[in-house]
Amino acid sequence: MRAEILAIGTELTTGQTVDTNSPWLSQRLAEVGIPTGYHTIVPDELTDIVEALHIAAGRASLILISGGLGPTQDDLTREALAQAAQVSLVEDPAALEHIRTFFSSRGRPMPERNRQQALRPENAELLPNPIGTAPGLFLHLSQALVFALPGVPRELQLMFQEQVRPRLLKHVGSAGVILYRKINTFGLGESAVEEKIADLTARGRNPEVGITVSDAVVSLRIIARYPTLAEAQAQVSATESLIRQRLGEIVFGVEDEELEDIVVRLAQERKATLAAAESITGGLVAHRICRVPGASQYFRGGIVAYTEEIKHQELGIPWEMLRELGAVSAPVAQAMAEAVRRRFAADLAVATTGFAGPTGGTPQEPIGTAYVALASQQGTEVVRHVWSGERTEIMSRTAKLALNLLRLHLLRRPTS
Amino acid sequence: MRAEILAIGTELTTGQTVDTNSPWLSQRLAEVGIPTGYHTIVPDELTDIVEALHIAAGRASLILISGGLGPTQDDLTREALAQAAQVSLVEDPAALEHIRTFFSSRGRPMPERNRQQALRPENAELLPNPIGTAPGLFLHLSQALVFALPGVPRELQLMFQEQVRPRLLKHVGSAGVILYRKINTFGLGESAVEEKIADLTARGRNPEVGITVSDAVVSLRIIARYPTLAEAQAQVSATESLIRQRLGEIVFGVEDEELEDIVVRLAQERKATLAAAESITGGLVAHRICRVPGASQYFRGGIVAYTEEIKHQELGIPWEMLRELGAVSAPVAQAMAEAVRRRFAADLAVATTGFAGPTGGTPQEPIGTAYVALASQQGTEVVRHVWSGERTEIMSRTAKLALNLLRLHLLRRPTS
Repeated sequence: MRAEILAIGTELTTGQTVDTNSPWLSQRLAEVGIPTGYHTIVPDELTDIVEALHIAAGRASLILISGGLGPTQDDLTREALAQAAQVSLVEDPAALEHIRTFFSSRGRPMPERNRQQALRPENAELLPNPIGTAPGLFLHLSQALVFALPGVPRELQLMFQEQVRPRLLKHVGSAGVILYRKINTFGLGESAVEEKIADLTARGRNPEVGITVSDAVVSLRIIARYPTLAEAQAQVSATESLIRQRLGEIVFGVEDEELEDIVVRLAQERKATLAAAESITGGLVAHRICRVPGASQYFRGGIVAYTEEIKHQELGIPWEMLRELGAVSAPVAQAMAEAVRRRFAADLAVATTGFAGPTGGTPQEPIGTAYVALASQQGTEVVRHVWSGERTEIMSRTAKLALNLLRLHLLRRPTS
Repeated sequence: MRAEILAIGTELTTGQTVDTNSPWLSQRLAEVGIPTGYHTIVPDELTDIVEALHIAAGRASLILISGGLGPTQDDLTREALAQAAQVSLVEDPAALEHIRTFFSSRGRPMPERNRQQALRPENAELLPNPIGTAPGLFLHLSQALVFALPGVPRELQLMFQEQVRPRLLKHVGSAGVILYRKINTFGLGESAVEEKIADLTARGRNPEVGITVSDAVVSLRIIARYPTLAEAQAQVSATESLIRQRLGEIVFGVEDEELEDIVVRLAQERKATLAAAESITGGLVAHRICRVPGASQYFRGGIVAYTEEIKHQELGIPWEMLRELGAVSAPVAQAMAEAVRRRFAADLAVATTGFAGPTGGTPQEPIGTAYVALASQQGTEVVRHVWSGERTEIMSRTAKLALNLLRLHLLRRPTS
């Protein structure tokens, strides 16, 4: 069984609103073992909606529709479904009653335009909507099961959980399970990662492994399709183990975990305090750490030293060093990290300096060059990287580089 | 002419990633007078992509495709286009050269798998990609013009503006104009804003005005549909004037402008230097300022003082004040701002302190409470706000509150 999702609305096709209902529905379908193929976004035009329904019914066994169930002239889903199914629209007394009550309980009469929301295709079952006026619809179209849901995300989500999901489980039986696992890595580019797991990303493998990149984080997405949850879990585990074996320490977390979540957790486990001296990243390293609940126990604080003067004044970097080597250099990064570590009496401190662009840079240190230093009791390591991209990307990725240095150092440190 | 948009990617059909490229493209097409009908999201499966291409070519005269141009086994757009157009794939020497240079300029050899990005359908023209490896494609498919663009938003957007738009204007001529204008405000909630411009947001008005909210920024979107560019521009201007008259100083910028862009611009105009002492925001105020090119000339630096100890050590906040009033209080915010202002010899300084949650807070100062202080030569003002929402939302909105205080102070200050 493969599902298809239609989202109806001209505000979507003009691009003024981003469709979040379709991705949400896809994820919920996967949780009951139903994969999704096409998503189609359709304008508020009767002929367009009918055509989309015909195409979908010809190739999918389950169709979920959002939108077009409102009370305005632009709301055409009911009519389009009736036309596609070649049935009449009938007024449903129970639906009419619900809509009347929805308004009267708020001290208002029902506007006449809302009456059309009580219409349904002859062969459709109504799905109640306790938090809105538009009932949903459930019907057959050719060989496909069709659910039409309101476009308001909150109403759609409640109706899916209360009305659609139970019916799917009944109709579909146990159609197997689709399980996802997302594994996040930092430190290698997309091509280099794929080279190490090329057999796992080969087409036709179950579990399937896909690769995506976002802001220097390369993520592996495991998709496992099996008859039972237990099998799917076992297979996902096995594939995850292979990935971790092949990729080693560039793997930092799973699902929505960010580098800073791991850093704070490791700092808590190892009771290590942290500080940051930032130039190029302008406070982003400190901010990312502080976003993690509980960071305050281990993050001592930070300095944003964006100019040479403040690097000298606040971190004691000697003028001669700044003049001769430049603020963007390994010795300056090292000096910054060591200074802020001492100053804040932290176990570990990171420092960042670099050229974010669009101006600046030298032939040896072009725009995109960043130095990140990590100072600890054992000494200071400095890493250099040259990023491509825009100013904000360079800043963001350098901050991640700093967090990653912290992560790796804490990982290699024995637990207290 | 009606356009259709295809977005290729299993991460989209599984719902793990939300498609933002398609809405963006729809808006850009409208600006050159081309309406968009269907958007279709397609899995990384060759047969699915080919089918979607056939359907689109049968009903649209312009097709924009995003995604599937990467270097992995899942990147099938080139092959699908060749199959749909019934032509061969050929390797393009110029493309291969570009890709080789892209890697060698970063000191690395080209991974062999990136070689496939130099392939193109025989009948396709390459669209250069100066900021990535994947060239775009331009070809005919039946009666339709087809543009295939990389899925990475930054690359797609640049390629659209530089390569697609000029070709469209040439092919399409002038079909009437749709013009957008976005006006950003901070300081009032959505309902309060709408009350002031209710007549402008009425349905059927041309230009139309829509309201959206995102992270405490209420934006007005003007949409004007007129036969000529000159008319549309005049109408947009007139509506914008009305909006600015009604909303006054809560209007801070237009289009993609952020509060920090305005702050840095005003600081440059008034030659005012800035500093920040941050607790709750953890470095975000400093980081946002530093993201703006040219900030280094006016941003002296900042302190992230996340603990009471560091507030005392770095900013000289007396222990008695912290004990008696608490770190989250107006006097502490004031003392932080004044201390960092003196310390960094800045004209203006902001300080932030508050409870971001999920733990913390008191009955008088619940989670979401933030104090923001702005210290200047004239004295210090302190503002208190209680936000609802998650930890990261509270941090982000408090940072905006600080930036807005800076903006308003600089606005009211005479230009040097």
